Amino acid sequence: MQCQNYGITRNLERENLNLNPLQRGGVLPAVSRQALYDYGDGYSVCDYCAGRLDEISKPNIMGFLDDLAKFINVDLVRTVHGAREGKFAIMHALCKPGDYIVVDGNAHYTTHLAAERIGLNIIEVPNSDYPEYRIRSEKYREVLENAIDDKKDIKLALLTHVDGNYGNLTPETEIGKICQDAGVPIVLNCAYSMGRLPIDAKSFNMDFVVGSGHKSMAASGPIGVLGMKEEWGEQLLIRSSRHTNKEIEMLGCTSRGAPVATLMASLPYVMERVEKWEEHLQLAQKFAAEMEKIAGVKQLGIKPTLHDLVRFETPAFHKIAQNHPRRGFFLYEELKKRKIVGIKRGQTEWFKCSIYGMTPEQVDYIVQAFHEIAQSK
Amino acid sequence: MQCQNYGITRNLERENLNLNPLQRGGVLPAVSRQALYDYGDGYSVCDYCAGRLDEISKPNIMGFLDDLAKFINVDLVRTVHGAREGKFAIMHALCKPGDYIVVDGNAHYTTHLAAERIGLNIIEVPNSDYPEYRIRSEKYREVLENAIDDKKDIKLALLTHVDGNYGNLTPETEIGKICQDAGVPIVLNCAYSMGRLPIDAKSFNMDFVVGSGHKSMAASGPIGVLGMKEEWGEQLLIRSSRHTNKEIEMLGCTSRGAPVATLMASLPYVMERVEKWEEHLQLAQKFAAEMEKIAGVKQLGIKPTLHDLVRFETPAFHKIAQNHPRRGFFLYEELKKRKIVGIKRGQTEWFKCSIYGMTPEQVDYIVQAFHEIAQSK
Repeated sequence: MQCQNYGITRNLERENLNLNPLQRGGVLPAVSRQALYDYGDGYSVCDYCAGRLDEISKPNIMGFLDDLAKFINVDLVRTVHGAREGKFAIMHALCKPGDYIVVDGNAHYTTHLAAERIGLNIIEVPNSDYPEYRIRSEKYREVLENAIDDKKDIKLALLTHVDGNYGNLTPETEIGKICQDAGVPIVLNCAYSMGRLPIDAKSFNMDFVVGSGHKSMAASGPIGVLGMKEEWGEQLLIRSSRHTNKEIEMLGCTSRGAPVATLMASLPYVMERVEKWEEHLQLAQKFAAEMEKIAGVKQLGIKPTLHDLVRFETPAFHKIAQNHPRRGFFLYEELKKRKIVGIKRGQTEWFKCSIYGMTPEQVDYIVQAFHEIAQSK
Repeated sequence: MQCQNYGITRNLERENLNLNPLQRGGVLPAVSRQALYDYGDGYSVCDYCAGRLDEISKPNIMGFLDDLAKFINVDLVRTVHGAREGKFAIMHALCKPGDYIVVDGNAHYTTHLAAERIGLNIIEVPNSDYPEYRIRSEKYREVLENAIDDKKDIKLALLTHVDGNYGNLTPETEIGKICQDAGVPIVLNCAYSMGRLPIDAKSFNMDFVVGSGHKSMAASGPIGVLGMKEEWGEQLLIRSSRHTNKEIEMLGCTSRGAPVATLMASLPYVMERVEKWEEHLQLAQKFAAEMEKIAGVKQLGIKPTLHDLVRFETPAFHKIAQNHPRRGFFLYEELKKRKIVGIKRGQTEWFKCSIYGMTPEQVDYIVQAFHEIAQSK
C-alpha cells in the first residue's frame, strides 16, 4: 500500500513568533537539541540499563533525578509521560473507584479525565468568576471542610498551581496548609509553573507535585515530573511482587527515549531561567499593560498577571470581524502576515497568549502589530 | 545549585555495531531524523490541534492513523506511549480488580505489571521448557478451557507474538481462533513483531494488537500502537462525560511530541522493510547457524529461528571466563575492541542478540569476531 503525504515538516517555530502558551516553555536550548540528536533512536537511553530506568548511570539519570529532587524540594522523584500521567498515577495509587477528591475550579481537563478514568467523584472549589476567576484559599477551606462535615472521606486534594485558561497563580502555600491540617494529601499541578517559576514542594506544604517537561521545562515531549514526600514512596512506588525491582505504577519504566535526555540536558538551563522568573514576569506584565492600551482589549484573570500566560477579551477585534471581508479569520491572517502565530484561526472574541522567552524587542514588535491590526476596517 | 555532569552524549550507535535486540528495530531512517529535528520542541505536533490529537491534519496524524490501521488490519488505532501502556489501557477498560486473564508463559514483564497494577489474576500457559521454550496452541487451549471449566470468568487473553527472551514466534492465528471460539477477547503483544514482520490483526483472529514504535517501528521513544476491532471502540475509546471529545483511557492525548512525528515519517520505510522480512529472517538464521559452528555455542528457542532476536547458551565463553585475567568481562571487552556492543558486561553463560538491519558484511564481521574470541585463552 501507498502512504498518504503526512506533510511532516514544521518551520512554524523557526520562522515565526509563536504566541501559543502551550509552546512557549517547551522550546529546546541548543544543548538539548544535541541530546535529541544523540538519543533520537528508539530505546536510546537504555544502553547501560541494569533493570531500573531511574538508576541508569550512563547517561546519569540517577544523578539527574537527585538534582531534580533538590531543585523542586521533594524527597522522591520520577519522570512520567506528562503531568496528566503523573496525576493519574497518584490518584490510582491512593484512591479507589467511588472515592471523593477535592479539586480547584480552574483544573486542567486532564485532572478531570484522570479522576474519571478511575471512577472518582470530584468536589469542585469554584473560582471567583468573571473577570478574575481567582481560586481563593478561604473558598478552598470552606469546600474541603463542608465535604468532610458531610462525612465524606476525602482521599486527595488537587490544586492547579497556574491554570491554562487565565494564567492565575494560586496561593499554594496556604491551600497546602489547609489540606495538611485537614489530613488530606494534596497534589500541586505545576504543568505551567515548574520550569518557569520556583517550586519548593515542602515550603508549599505539598505531598505531591507534578510538572510537564514539554510544557514548561524546555524538553521534547512527552515527559513529565512526579515528585513526592518520602512517606508516599511506599504506596506510589510500590514494587511488583514478581519483578521485584520494577515499580508497578510506572509499569516498570516510563521515559525510555529522547525526552528524558532532553529534560536532563535542559535542567541547568531551566534552573537558570527560573532564577530570572521576575524578569520574565515583568515583561509579561508590560505586554499585558500595552495590550490593554488598545480600546476594547481587557486582560482577564488576576491583575497585574502573575504568570506569562494571559487571557484577553477582545471585543475590539470581534467588532472588526463583523464587517471584515475575511470575517473572523482576519486576525489570524493579519498576524500571520507579520510572522506572528499561535492565536487560533477564527478566534476574535478572546484569546490567550504568552510571550515567554521572547526578547523585549520581539514583544514590542508584537504589541505594535496588535495595535496596527486594531486599526483595520 | 550546581547540576552534576550527566554525561549526556551518545555515540554508541554511530561508532559501533550494536547487538542489543532492544535497539535494533528503533534506529531512525534519515527522513525521521528530519522529523525529529522539526518536531523537537515541547508540544510541537499541537500547532493546529482542535482538541483531538488523533484528528490533527497538520501534520496529518489523522491520515497517518488511517494508513497505520490498514497496515496492521484493524478498524481503530491510536498511538500510546508504548506497548505496555497499550496493554494497560486494554486491561483497565475491560477488567476489574480480581478478574482473571490468561497469559502465555513467555509474556514480557510489563504484561505482568499492567495486570498487577489493576489487581488482576494471571493464569499462565507454560512454555515447553528447555531448550525450545515454545508456546503451543494445544497447551493454550487446555489452560483456557480448564480455567473456564473451573468456573472462572476469563475477561481477557494475551499472547506474546514474539517474546523478548527467545525470539519465539507464536502460532497467533490458531490461538486467536481458540480464544474467539471460547468467547474470550484476545490481545496480541507485537512489540517485537509490528514493524518487523507482517501483522494482520483480523486474519490473526485478534481483538487487539499493541506495538512498540521505539522497539520495532523505527521511531523515537516512547511511542506505541494500540489497534482494535470496531466493536471494542465503544468500551476502550469511551469519551469523557464532561469533556465530550476527549477519550478517557487516553487521558485526552497521548503522543504529544516528536515520537509521533518520527513514527509517521518512518511508516513508509517500515512498510517497505516489512515486505522484505523474509530476507531479514534468512540473514538471522544464517547468523545463528554460523554462531553454532563455535563448539559450545547453542541457539535456544525454536530452530531454525523465526525471528532476528536469538538467544544462545555459551558454555564455550563461560569456560574461557573462568581462567581469563579479565574473568567474565573478557567477552564484553573483546567485542568492544572490535567495535561490537550490546552484550551485557560480565555475561558469558548465555546472551541474546540481534543483527536486524545490518548488512551481510557486517554480520560476517560479527560472526568472525565471535569465532576469534572463542579461541581466547
